[in-house]
Amino acid sequence: MKICPFCTKKITDYYLETNNFAVIYNISPILPGHSLIIPKKHQESLFELTHDELAEFMELGRTAAELLCKVFETNGFNWAIQEREVAGQSVAHLHMHIVPRKIGDMINPGDWYQRLEKIESGDIDTYERFRLSKEMLDNLTEKMKKAAIKFGYRYE
Amino acid sequence: MKICPFCTKKITDYYLETNNFAVIYNISPILPGHSLIIPKKHQESLFELTHDELAEFMELGRTAAELLCKVFETNGFNWAIQEREVAGQSVAHLHMHIVPRKIGDMINPGDWYQRLEKIESGDIDTYERFRLSKEMLDNLTEKMKKAAIKFGYRYE
Repeated sequence: MKICPFCTKKITDYYLETNNFAVIYNISPILPGHSLIIPKKHQESLFELTHDELAEFMELGRTAAELLCKVFETNGFNWAIQEREVAGQSVAHLHMHIVPRKIGDMINPGDWYQRLEKIESGDIDTYERFRLSKEMLDNLTEKMKKAAIKFGYRYE
Repeated sequence: MKICPFCTKKITDYYLETNNFAVIYNISPILPGHSLIIPKKHQESLFELTHDELAEFMELGRTAAELLCKVFETNGFNWAIQEREVAGQSVAHLHMHIVPRKIGDMINPGDWYQRLEKIESGDIDTYERFRLSKEMLDNLTEKMKKAAIKFGYRYE
């Protein structure tokens, strides 16, 4: 049986969380801050969520977007969900992409999505496919945790 | 003052709606079924919504996705929100894109987003920029209304 990469995440990998959802830093970020909102339990589809869970999921998405905008000093971001493989869902565990955006971050602003699909589909070869080391990912997660405390989104 | 194109929409242009949100067919669809979820009143940003409005917005998004999947016989779709111009928001009225997807609908499945950005930014010239006529848009809206009634999402 294939192991779900999101189900192996530990609580220390979350930089923000609610009862049922968590925010993690993407291991293959297409731009700085690229994060994912995921359910803590294994849920594949948007349609597996109750109405209250959907509200909790999206509210956490909004909180994460607000925090990312503060950290990366912007007010713009992209949200995207790919439902099912035919739409580009590469990991069969529901996840919403959040990418903070800044002027000039890409030559063509719309390229972020194509890059996302390429990274996920493996069209970019292993040399080109930028993947954070465990140490880098842990450091970025710690940085986001500290920012979350500083800006009042996390208490500990 | 620039007139907001979504604020000029009439109730007859909605094929699904709740108290505060509506679903319309995109006038420049990148694929068949490409629709938008919008607040009925002029709200520009995700952060202008109350928690309950956010839940209502996303639940209507899920309902629209379910209906589109039935009409276009698939279970996959893309959801995307562009918050602020820097992220590609072309109309300053909050809108979530929903695009039902099918195998083979694009040579590179990820191209839908780039095409969306190109259409919105006007990078595609007027000849290439596919825009539905009023009659075609009205017909597609009527078709979606009928489907919504057939599948039990709309009663009238």
